[in-house]
Amino acid sequence: MRLSQMLFVTLRESPAEATIPSHQLLLRAGYIRRIGSGVYAYLPLMWRVLRKISEIVREEMDATGAQECLLPQLQPAELWQESGRWETYTKAEGIMFAFRDRREQEVSLGPTHEEVITTIAKEMIRSYRQLPLHLYQIQTKFRDEIRPRFGLMRSREFIMKDGYSFHTDEASLKKTYQDMDRAYRNMFSRCGLDYVAVEADSGAIGGSGSQEFMVLADIGEDEILYTEDGKYAANVEKAISTPPDAVESPFEEYEKRETPNTSTIATLAEFAKCSPTNIVKNVLYEVTYDNGISALVIVSIRGDQDVNDVKLQNELSKIAPDFGATTVIAVTVPDAEAQQKWAAKPLPLGYIAPDLGDDYIKPVENIHPHFVRMVDATAVGLKHFATGANETGYHVFGANWQQQFDLPKRVVDVRKAMAGDRASHDPEQRLQSARGIEVGHIFQLGTKYSQAMNASYTSEDGQELPFYMGCYGVGVSRLAQAAVEQCHDKDGMIWNPAIAPYHVIIVVPNISDETAMQTAEQFYNDLNAVGIETVLDDRDERAGVKFKDADLIGIPYRIVTGRSLKNGKVEVVQRATGKRQDIELDAVIPTIQEWLSS
Amino acid sequence: MRLSQMLFVTLRESPAEATIPSHQLLLRAGYIRRIGSGVYAYLPLMWRVLRKISEIVREEMDATGAQECLLPQLQPAELWQESGRWETYTKAEGIMFAFRDRREQEVSLGPTHEEVITTIAKEMIRSYRQLPLHLYQIQTKFRDEIRPRFGLMRSREFIMKDGYSFHTDEASLKKTYQDMDRAYRNMFSRCGLDYVAVEADSGAIGGSGSQEFMVLADIGEDEILYTEDGKYAANVEKAISTPPDAVESPFEEYEKRETPNTSTIATLAEFAKCSPTNIVKNVLYEVTYDNGISALVIVSIRGDQDVNDVKLQNELSKIAPDFGATTVIAVTVPDAEAQQKWAAKPLPLGYIAPDLGDDYIKPVENIHPHFVRMVDATAVGLKHFATGANETGYHVFGANWQQQFDLPKRVVDVRKAMAGDRASHDPEQRLQSARGIEVGHIFQLGTKYSQAMNASYTSEDGQELPFYMGCYGVGVSRLAQAAVEQCHDKDGMIWNPAIAPYHVIIVVPNISDETAMQTAEQFYNDLNAVGIETVLDDRDERAGVKFKDADLIGIPYRIVTGRSLKNGKVEVVQRATGKRQDIELDAVIPTIQEWLSS
Repeated sequence: MRLSQMLFVTLRESPAEATIPSHQLLLRAGYIRRIGSGVYAYLPLMWRVLRKISEIVREEMDATGAQECLLPQLQPAELWQESGRWETYTKAEGIMFAFRDRREQEVSLGPTHEEVITTIAKEMIRSYRQLPLHLYQIQTKFRDEIRPRFGLMRSREFIMKDGYSFHTDEASLKKTYQDMDRAYRNMFSRCGLDYVAVEADSGAIGGSGSQEFMVLADIGEDEILYTEDGKYAANVEKAISTPPDAVESPFEEYEKRETPNTSTIATLAEFAKCSPTNIVKNVLYEVTYDNGISALVIVSIRGDQDVNDVKLQNELSKIAPDFGATTVIAVTVPDAEAQQKWAAKPLPLGYIAPDLGDDYIKPVENIHPHFVRMVDATAVGLKHFATGANETGYHVFGANWQQQFDLPKRVVDVRKAMAGDRASHDPEQRLQSARGIEVGHIFQLGTKYSQAMNASYTSEDGQELPFYMGCYGVGVSRLAQAAVEQCHDKDGMIWNPAIAPYHVIIVVPNISDETAMQTAEQFYNDLNAVGIETVLDDRDERAGVKFKDADLIGIPYRIVTGRSLKNGKVEVVQRATGKRQDIELDAVIPTIQEWLSS
Repeated sequence: MRLSQMLFVTLRESPAEATIPSHQLLLRAGYIRRIGSGVYAYLPLMWRVLRKISEIVREEMDATGAQECLLPQLQPAELWQESGRWETYTKAEGIMFAFRDRREQEVSLGPTHEEVITTIAKEMIRSYRQLPLHLYQIQTKFRDEIRPRFGLMRSREFIMKDGYSFHTDEASLKKTYQDMDRAYRNMFSRCGLDYVAVEADSGAIGGSGSQEFMVLADIGEDEILYTEDGKYAANVEKAISTPPDAVESPFEEYEKRETPNTSTIATLAEFAKCSPTNIVKNVLYEVTYDNGISALVIVSIRGDQDVNDVKLQNELSKIAPDFGATTVIAVTVPDAEAQQKWAAKPLPLGYIAPDLGDDYIKPVENIHPHFVRMVDATAVGLKHFATGANETGYHVFGANWQQQFDLPKRVVDVRKAMAGDRASHDPEQRLQSARGIEVGHIFQLGTKYSQAMNASYTSEDGQELPFYMGCYGVGVSRLAQAAVEQCHDKDGMIWNPAIAPYHVIIVVPNISDETAMQTAEQFYNDLNAVGIETVLDDRDERAGVKFKDADLIGIPYRIVTGRSLKNGKVEVVQRATGKRQDIELDAVIPTIQEWLSS
């Protein structure tokens, strides 16, 4: 392609909408264009990148025996009602576009395809002899994000590879899951990304185990905790660790004391001259279920620890059936306005004890009349601890479980692992923190969807059994931007040759120099002929503009048909290193071929 | 791919939802699966076909210098309001899915992309030096069809290639239009289709000229009129012709006569012993505009002719500004219920004259108080004609324009060309009729969108001028089904090798025969290694089942490792012809290579 004939417009300034480098660069270099909130057009350069990534993904998937297909984007509501996710996706997270068609039927735009593929499997797979089976697609997906941001990182329309596998048993599922782990590592390595695989929470997708692939980048939306020995890495939402040991309690006798202005752990510890590890903190939450029922929750946790919202939500989901519900719509810390709806009298906030009485809850429709009490494992073993006295300005000290307070029956792990914690696998290792962009996520779903949707096969011994399922996603458009975020400099993008829109850009500093143009045309034809994808900057622009643009769009190798020509050479510049060298005309193509193959 | 490891399920019976052969076969052969009304999953075999068609389309587009991109499917309502098509697409035709997102913004799902691309051009193209430019995409589109039918022929979600070109002037547009004509002919020929290019109406897309590409098939939804000399072919919606000459009128004196039970042209001609060409027929329509105004329309046309609804709608669109409107929402023949809303007294239906009085229209809000009167060219030259007397059971005879009746000021061409008519280009040629499936449509849009959306560039002499535009569509998924519709037999599909999911299927009649399996495996590896895409039927099924399935899925060449092996041969069957031959093992691959390259 010749730049003179291409839709090629670069901007000197970053549009105000972009706050992170990769988003700014993609806009400035004319790779993408915003069409609406969280909605972008992929212009020709970007589309070449996306196709190359897709092809790498496809090759790695095909190599595992997975089969490509294309499932519909329009999805009937019934399928989601059958799986039980309609409410979660249209109300709780609410990220699914859903609407009525001309015939007043409810339809949605697929953010994911478990329901569709399980329906197909249910109808087409009858026998164990048809298993295992793995179908995947590369497709535009939709999420009705409230706050789309960072360009393609969190957009409302984006390209994903999503694959779904079906198995007779868990062993077969685990084998495919491991195949996917390898395939994903291959994909991301081939794309030239610096990534890490981490343990992950399964979120609304559900299932029994999952792993994320993170591209490390400072602006990443996810926090990763890992150990230096490389043996542990997890999303903070999922991470576990060994908390610091509690120090011995200085409180011997049980007593209630006046403790003015100590509504935080820090002020209380200072006031009482104790460690935060001697305190049991009681945190109040409000959970709302999909049937409209809300419950108040008190989580008792050791004073130096924080509650991990994702772990808490998972625990509250497990007990949804106790409230006649199937799923959690929201978990919040109730503010003053929320408290007014159910509080029978002013709450002793900052001074709550594990046994705060149910009489604080007034009888209101849809509010469960008892507190849900949970204790985190960190608080269970504490002795002679301090905690609230259920009276503003007072705490109790030297308390023990089963003496002054019943130990809540629900003992849970909801603490947030933190950088600096000891690793669970090796106390010598401390957790480190890094930020990452999630570009892949693989799940062992187990039988969650097949059971909900009655999708079964006939086993070798004639039983009707639900499929074991796995699902595996790659954020194709997000990956493209993550690659830019991870690899750019002040002058622009730096593409890995494997996913660069072109391998080579030929810049003619002065297009009225006939020799320069002829040499450039010759290289243009010869390079493309040997499969080195080459773009020719034949625009009638100043050399400086062309060099700046070449740096901005980040093509790996630049050939300049300029001054060196009089010595029978051209200048060749490597974008990543900035290294320039004059190379004899005959040696140019072999040199670039060697670079590309290395 | 081995069939034993593929999602491969064939059905003996056609599902009841399918009424035409191609739809039945695609379902039976497991190429597609219905997920909702007008919504299908493309299973692995189908997806291979669609990718092959896409690749042919891509190659032909790229060869013309067009650049591939991907535009968003979610489109903000504002863009469509700017172009003036929001009302037409959400109300008139109503075929665009439109809804509100979580932030109460109106968005739609793109059925076409003129608005998006024109916005991009407006923002990025500043100078004539950037022109011409042609961008295209291959993408899933959406139409909220009221009656989805015929599988992928008229579905609610389908794959299209759509391209949009921008030019400084009409000459440049016409050049690209001609390039597209050639590119489209290449595409359809390469896909092995029997197609015809026809003149077409531009419909809601608009513009100054357009051409459709039709795959000929009995079940086609479009009627095509063409001449044997190959010089004329048009969609019946657009077709012109020379009507038969009117015969001389037998009516000399003007008179009104009682003509009981003659409310149709046929009964009147018989009663009055005249030719239908001696009669002026007056047809009543009701048009509704986008501002809610309705008008009653009387079209006077020669008795042997019919009104072409599309041409009539185009004429009524032209006069929308007379009613303060911009576009037509609907044109109907008002039924009894509709008449009640505006008829001041019973209408003399079947006996209406061109001068039916405006006093038949009662004063009602939003109903225009005067008839819109139009006369088709066929009726203009008639002398001594018969027509209604505005009184049930009576006609007038021997009437003349400007004597008994004012000639309506709007003289239009709204007659429907018919098979048997004389061709306009050569009266010796008669129009023939055929049915076709529209698989491509190219348009010269002119400045319709660029003017509406203020999309301009600076010309060489410094003027701001609107772009000339063209747009060019191919129905990729429809084409795939059209290929099946055009080429199948009682046993199944017959794919052209260029778009077949695989070139060769190897059938092992008995998988417990080791030699047969070994030979099959060897061919499977060798054929795939030389780029002949091969699938191996290694299922544990009866030979008869395998042969039936191979015929059904329509793979061009079948190799059977059966009885002939003992003579060092395999049976090779050509699906299209049914021709079977035993070929020496060594000669099989060269033979198939030769077939594929011819």
